[in-house]
Amino acid sequence: MTSELDPATERRVRDSFAKQRLMTHLGARIESVTPGRVVIALPHRAEVTQQNGYIHAGATSAVADTAGGYATLTLCPPDSDVLTVEYKINLVAPAIGERLEAVGEVVKAGRTLTVTALDVHAVRDGSRTLIATGQQTVMCLRPRADGAV
Amino acid sequence: MTSELDPATERRVRDSFAKQRLMTHLGARIESVTPGRVVIALPHRAEVTQQNGYIHAGATSAVADTAGGYATLTLCPPDSDVLTVEYKINLVAPAIGERLEAVGEVVKAGRTLTVTALDVHAVRDGSRTLIATGQQTVMCLRPRADGAV
Amino acid sequence: MTSELDPATERRVRDSFAKQRLMTHLGARIESVTPGRVVIALPHRAEVTQQNGYIHAGATSAVADTAGGYATLTLCPPDSDVLTVEYKINLVAPAIGERLEAVGEVVKAGRTLTVTALDVHAVRDGSRTLIATGQQTVMCLRPRADGAV
Amino acid sequence: MTSELDPATERRVRDSFAKQRLMTHLGARIESVTPGRVVIALPHRAEVTQQNGYIHAGATSAVADTAGGYATLTLCPPDSDVLTVEYKINLVAPAIGERLEAVGEVVKAGRTLTVTALDVHAVRDGSRTLIATGQQTVMCLRPRADGAV
Repeated sequence: MTSELDPATERRVRDSFAKQRLMTHLGARIESVTPGRVVIALPHRAEVTQQNGYIHAGATSAVADTAGGYATLTLCPPDSDVLTVEYKINLVAPAIGERLEAVGEVVKAGRTLTVTALDVHAVRDGSRTLIATGQQTVMCLRPRADGAV
Repeated sequence: MTSELDPATERRVRDSFAKQRLMTHLGARIESVTPGRVVIALPHRAEVTQQNGYIHAGATSAVADTAGGYATLTLCPPDSDVLTVEYKINLVAPAIGERLEAVGEVVKAGRTLTVTALDVHAVRDGSRTLIATGQQTVMCLRPRADGAV
Repeated sequence: MTSELDPATERRVRDSFAKQRLMTHLGARIESVTPGRVVIALPHRAEVTQQNGYIHAGATSAVADTAGGYATLTLCPPDSDVLTVEYKINLVAPAIGERLEAVGEVVKAGRTLTVTALDVHAVRDGSRTLIATGQQTVMCLRPRADGAV
Repeated sequence: MTSELDPATERRVRDSFAKQRLMTHLGARIESVTPGRVVIALPHRAEVTQQNGYIHAGATSAVADTAGGYATLTLCPPDSDVLTVEYKINLVAPAIGERLEAVGEVVKAGRTLTVTALDVHAVRDGSRTLIATGQQTVMCLRPRADGAV
């Protein structure tokens, strides 16, 4: 998946992300969009922490899930939207650092369903630590008014 | 698990929740705390939505995960903290409604690890729809400075 | 889901199960088929054990997954087959007993995908212990020669 | 994890595997044992198939789970046993081929819990196809009579 992404697809991903009010509210931003792979950064701010001052697993999961969804969207037909069917995530270390980097990467793109790998690293003083790893199932779908699966 | 919760444990849960800045930032609040079961409500607000105006799966997951963690905490020894080891969640319907209600309930409390069931309903005009269902593994642990597992 | 199952659907489930050579090889059998719910029993035999003499997690998972798949099949259109998209299972206690009972039950039947709950109990001297609990995503599909998703 | 495995650890893995009657019953065998990584092969035989003649997801999962457990065991203290806490697996293609190769590889070895990645390929006429991918949580534990977690 080293081929270049066409500009229309990248724009579709970035436009959709910009409409996700939750991402703005958390302070997340897209770092990169390439075919089958999207990276989202989440800076540490008090608003995204849990009781010990680390980034909350809920915020970690939200950016990981979003990265995997958009990684899938880069490989769907042009007029598709994506829907997370399910995901599983292991939180393997406390989220300590200046920011998180969540990578969603397509492992298997199917006719109906796509499986992605999710990895989240904390970046602290230039060093990176894996803090979460997950696996997700995403569906490409044509937009419907009711959002039903 | 119909016995009453002792007030000290309930206070511990509510105090810890109050320190989770992310929960405040999302607008979530605890609805009820009983032994092995915690309910968290998340009102619909623009700040927690995705690209179609529904509540974002990331917000849904965050409150579900938090409900399961605190459900576990009600059954841990008095000086414990809890840590989500991992969870899996299926998003089964769009999160349309005035608010979400996330229920975390202990299925099996073990010596080291506890398994919970997570259910999230959307409430709309008084009717409830299941929008997400999950399963979580939580660890009771004595507080440590480094938060390590 | 208390309505009665039509005989044709029950026969379809039992015929398909009978063709699963692995189930015969493990010694598993269908205990009951009702709408949205299937129970499979697995007697303890040396051939299904792990290194400590308990029933192997692989055998436990195999019958749990199969129960959930057939629970789904009871609710699919008449000419469908089913395919497990994915499942997650927690092994919560050692599988000690004369036999296992695996229950697959539909939690949410969707247009394309169905979510089931999987519970496995060990039965020993008449008492039952939960040994595994899981959650599964299943797809109803029309039979295709290549089995592709 | 390219360092060599000490012979005692490899013997411990192979001895434990040899005691798993289910693995023998399925016809599975260990292909390789290296630090943090174990490969198990499962030849196609009628006894491990489902209703369409492909290898059953239950057999696929059993060897994947076992590979991940033993991959973990290579990194546990000398007198440990391992216990699968939970795993999640996506079945991404039908298991068509002469044999399966299941790879379990440690992603993060923790003090109490280890997370592994599970990948299963079908081998057919010399070509390999990914048929399942999963993620697993394993616990290193000192042997106890009751096998409790």
